[in-house]
Amino acid sequence: MNSFGRIFRVNIFGESHGESVGVNIDGVPAGLPLVPEDFLPDLERRKGGMQKGTTPRKEDDLPIFKSGLFNDKSTGAPITILFENNNTRSGDYAKQRSVPRPGHADFVASRKFGGHEDYRGGGAFSARLTVGLVAAGVIAKKMLAGVTVTSSILEIGGEPDLDKGLQKAIDAKDSIGGIVECRVSGLPIGLGEPFWDSVESVLAHAAFAIPAVKGVEFGTGFAAARMFGSQHNDAIADMEGHTKTNHAGGIVGGITNGNELVYRIAIKPTSSTPKDQVTLNWETGEQETFSVKGRHDLCVALRAPVILEAMTAIVLADLMVLEQRIPRIWG
Amino acid sequence: MNSFGRIFRVNIFGESHGESVGVNIDGVPAGLPLVPEDFLPDLERRKGGMQKGTTPRKEDDLPIFKSGLFNDKSTGAPITILFENNNTRSGDYAKQRSVPRPGHADFVASRKFGGHEDYRGGGAFSARLTVGLVAAGVIAKKMLAGVTVTSSILEIGGEPDLDKGLQKAIDAKDSIGGIVECRVSGLPIGLGEPFWDSVESVLAHAAFAIPAVKGVEFGTGFAAARMFGSQHNDAIADMEGHTKTNHAGGIVGGITNGNELVYRIAIKPTSSTPKDQVTLNWETGEQETFSVKGRHDLCVALRAPVILEAMTAIVLADLMVLEQRIPRIWG
Amino acid sequence: MNSFGRIFRVNIFGESHGESVGVNIDGVPAGLPLVPEDFLPDLERRKGGMQKGTTPRKEDDLPIFKSGLFNDKSTGAPITILFENNNTRSGDYAKQRSVPRPGHADFVASRKFGGHEDYRGGGAFSARLTVGLVAAGVIAKKMLAGVTVTSSILEIGGEPDLDKGLQKAIDAKDSIGGIVECRVSGLPIGLGEPFWDSVESVLAHAAFAIPAVKGVEFGTGFAAARMFGSQHNDAIADMEGHTKTNHAGGIVGGITNGNELVYRIAIKPTSSTPKDQVTLNWETGEQETFSVKGRHDLCVALRAPVILEAMTAIVLADLMVLEQRIPRIWG
Amino acid sequence: MNSFGRIFRVNIFGESHGESVGVNIDGVPAGLPLVPEDFLPDLERRKGGMQKGTTPRKEDDLPIFKSGLFNDKSTGAPITILFENNNTRSGDYAKQRSVPRPGHADFVASRKFGGHEDYRGGGAFSARLTVGLVAAGVIAKKMLAGVTVTSSILEIGGEPDLDKGLQKAIDAKDSIGGIVECRVSGLPIGLGEPFWDSVESVLAHAAFAIPAVKGVEFGTGFAAARMFGSQHNDAIADMEGHTKTNHAGGIVGGITNGNELVYRIAIKPTSSTPKDQVTLNWETGEQETFSVKGRHDLCVALRAPVILEAMTAIVLADLMVLEQRIPRIWG
Repeated sequence: MNSFGRIFRVNIFGESHGESVGVNIDGVPAGLPLVPEDFLPDLERRKGGMQKGTTPRKEDDLPIFKSGLFNDKSTGAPITILFENNNTRSGDYAKQRSVPRPGHADFVASRKFGGHEDYRGGGAFSARLTVGLVAAGVIAKKMLAGVTVTSSILEIGGEPDLDKGLQKAIDAKDSIGGIVECRVSGLPIGLGEPFWDSVESVLAHAAFAIPAVKGVEFGTGFAAARMFGSQHNDAIADMEGHTKTNHAGGIVGGITNGNELVYRIAIKPTSSTPKDQVTLNWETGEQETFSVKGRHDLCVALRAPVILEAMTAIVLADLMVLEQRIPRIWG
Repeated sequence: MNSFGRIFRVNIFGESHGESVGVNIDGVPAGLPLVPEDFLPDLERRKGGMQKGTTPRKEDDLPIFKSGLFNDKSTGAPITILFENNNTRSGDYAKQRSVPRPGHADFVASRKFGGHEDYRGGGAFSARLTVGLVAAGVIAKKMLAGVTVTSSILEIGGEPDLDKGLQKAIDAKDSIGGIVECRVSGLPIGLGEPFWDSVESVLAHAAFAIPAVKGVEFGTGFAAARMFGSQHNDAIADMEGHTKTNHAGGIVGGITNGNELVYRIAIKPTSSTPKDQVTLNWETGEQETFSVKGRHDLCVALRAPVILEAMTAIVLADLMVLEQRIPRIWG
Repeated sequence: MNSFGRIFRVNIFGESHGESVGVNIDGVPAGLPLVPEDFLPDLERRKGGMQKGTTPRKEDDLPIFKSGLFNDKSTGAPITILFENNNTRSGDYAKQRSVPRPGHADFVASRKFGGHEDYRGGGAFSARLTVGLVAAGVIAKKMLAGVTVTSSILEIGGEPDLDKGLQKAIDAKDSIGGIVECRVSGLPIGLGEPFWDSVESVLAHAAFAIPAVKGVEFGTGFAAARMFGSQHNDAIADMEGHTKTNHAGGIVGGITNGNELVYRIAIKPTSSTPKDQVTLNWETGEQETFSVKGRHDLCVALRAPVILEAMTAIVLADLMVLEQRIPRIWG
Repeated sequence: MNSFGRIFRVNIFGESHGESVGVNIDGVPAGLPLVPEDFLPDLERRKGGMQKGTTPRKEDDLPIFKSGLFNDKSTGAPITILFENNNTRSGDYAKQRSVPRPGHADFVASRKFGGHEDYRGGGAFSARLTVGLVAAGVIAKKMLAGVTVTSSILEIGGEPDLDKGLQKAIDAKDSIGGIVECRVSGLPIGLGEPFWDSVESVLAHAAFAIPAVKGVEFGTGFAAARMFGSQHNDAIADMEGHTKTNHAGGIVGGITNGNELVYRIAIKPTSSTPKDQVTLNWETGEQETFSVKGRHDLCVALRAPVILEAMTAIVLADLMVLEQRIPRIWG
């Protein structure tokens, strides 16, 4: 299914080299102020071509509003936003059709969709679709008045100094991975459900929807597996539930506990490495040396913070509506 | 929401010290052979009191079938299974009401449900509810004919030698965490969707629903963040999609790729440590020294493998039905 | 799927001659007062054996609460209620297995579930399952504080005098149908959505889930198809949206308009008529004369009002929660 | 919620006088042949301005495909189709803002959305949005290979002779209602579920989503309420489940029974009657004589058959996918 959320519901669609990509968002409160300028900062952060290590493919990424807005406010009806694909070079991909790119969805997509998938530039699997997610995230952030969602890169290729990490990749003529952290403050106590819809469950669901994410951990995360209970437990300090430590990352029993929510994602190195690779040619059935064409990021983690913020905001906005913390009519 | 799945749908209910806990399962194919004996081995694996480091609370955990079975087969109607709670000692908990246990949901549950929650023994947040999940997992495994789901403990308190890890906790008179791995073989290529419903997304959703899980990683996971692309990419070796390495853990682009699916969960140390802890007394508003009553596991990771298998099987069974790999009428 | 609702969610399960039937209800606000006595009046209204024309099968229909209640209040966790089946006479049905009863689901159930269905007494298709719906309706009505839901029989066999209608059936030694109306007052303006989730859509969805319902109409309903617009339109009379007439039945554009909600259902005559019928014998492939065994209502419309009220309340409670008109914590 | 369906899922969006209206469709099998020409006949049938009694507003209604198609086939990714709004005359509506049109959603929409709704031409409530439904219906019909869905007008203003009925309205300078029937042949036995998701439930859900529908009945429908059981029961005639009569309209126990599916909808007279009406002025709080501006149908039933076919096909396509009667990869 290409949608997420129970009341605040986000549908994404489009292909990397198709007409457009976009997003259809249901459940936005009526009366939320929304103008194109609200979207530009986050869209700019997501965009490639702006910094060392990101793809030179340049798209304007101007949001085109097709429904759900009137007099610079949401109407309560579904909001549809399109982004045109202008800067496509599909020729790069047609040539590669017989050699599925390692680490990419080319092979599995072909099997899943019986060869009918739009294979150009990753098609419906392309990170190009995250532009719609970022747009939805902008709306979600607006809905989360009083809540602050921020993300930052913790390390690139194991280096907390990001330039150093990136230089490592450039020197090796290879792509590289990284770790991104998200922190949320201002949340009320009580979001989430026991078991199935724990806050960890729904946040991880959305975080793993970001391409290239291979790990998610909350609070002390994997390190908690090596701690004693007396070390890990966060003692409650006051009647608002604030704890002296925050090993839980702001979530106990699957429920927000009023402390800062903290979690991290592991991003694998970009599959499209500049290095030659040996892989299978479908037509010949032979192994062959393969070199990625197209324009790509050396490290997708560089563009991930704004996407992780968007995903986090989308999840939390839905939970806040469910808990009646966000009204159906704004203001 | 207390349910999960789109067609194969699992609802859990009950409280630790209530009448019973149970599970209501919709979307099981008609005609699946099911007798009580099918459930006993996994229920036994989940049960406490059987090994060093697990709770001495003993429950029979005999499944009571209330609907959906006829002549030792599923009928196609929802299956309801109850487990009676016999061995409860609620008195242990009533005394603790004014001191929310650190690391537990006591405080957040009280805020979320306005003090109306059943607080005895963790109530609806108790790991006691995983008995229903294990029962659903048994059915899911049966539906996954030809697919093998296995889980094992990788380490306890950082020790691959589990006895050593456990002894560490016993010596320290403290609880301890661990890491559990799940491996699935025999899956077809093509399960999952791009973005929202990637296989990582839905598996992590379910895995984080297991109490005490604070991290999930697929394939090389967090270690991938420190690799180069040329190292991490799994070269396709043959026309069935088998890869020479399996850093991706059997999932690319969110879709199963025909290789073994591999993922791990980090389990925090049991919140109910035998050690004294300092925390807040709600009534007095003062810090006080607190000592957990009740019967608890030193290391919940010991009981986690069968639960992780169940969750994995539940998720995969739903995906397999969606892809029409499991028929609506069995056999 | 055997569930309904988006936040206030009702799952039913069980079979006519199985262990039990029941209901699992999610999304009930925490703190709603609920004691067994709340359920008895509506359960009594639904029960057979109480009046001329209803089945002599007698069940105690005592609700057995299995989860979600504590100290006579809802906890916010799912509520599970069982009703034991005591008064079954399955022998009546085993004999009929080779002759699918006309008007019943015997034949289609066998095809749909490959012969694995519990065929005794209609199995999972039996009106016996409405006992769980009525229980859920009791909870929904409680949630709808200030809203009044009432249903009444308009006619039996075309007769507004119900005794006369019933006597007609008794004289003819046949079963008979009827029309039931539901009226709801006290609803706020604004429930429902344009198109897919219009109030008519969701109410009709639930109403057609009641066995034997073959028609649903709102306000003037089918008669509206023969009116002029100037006759049918309800002129708005005041700022609260009250209209001078109520041909719309309280719903315009799919949304409640603050007037009384009025709708009717058509109930077909009970399929289990006392009359001999000619139908197919599956085993012989021959037509044969068939006479219904078992105990049945002459007119199921007699028991329908309380079920229609329950369905209406279930739908409206969910809409009210969605519109944040019902709080997540009661009182 | 502005979407419908479980796997084959249809989201509609847009406003009558906004940029565009459209539809986003998830769950279409990969490889389904789809070219613009497939859509034109049904879009033409829906269009106004083509016959006596329909609105003179003319739109090209050319489908603009934004995603999900590649090489004239579906890819398996969501299909987005836009229809531009060119022929809007919003000035007609701005003037009417203070006088909510009787029978329309103007008043309730304003209350539901706090005055933020796009009120021009009915906004998100406009029948203009049915163009997206018709487009989704075209795809659904293609998926229903071997199934025939047809709709026809049974009567206009009570007249089976449609010209006569329409002339009645023209003579009276008033709008008028009608009854439309839908028939489906070629369906397999076994679609639908007992209770909540009976075929009647889901078809009625969709049918009542069509603007102006106030009644839905299956088979003999309301007339069944006046029949005896021995008259209404359809005797099974052969092993394929064919019945000698079809009072049930092809559905028993909520499940398709292999016979022709037959149902009817009652359509109220167009709310926008040419006649003067007395209603409330919001600003003055006074009653005033009101005359509808804009361009409207005298009888919306005239355009309803293709919409009812679309809705029916959408519902059935989803049920057929659920029952694995439609493959995930076409051909």
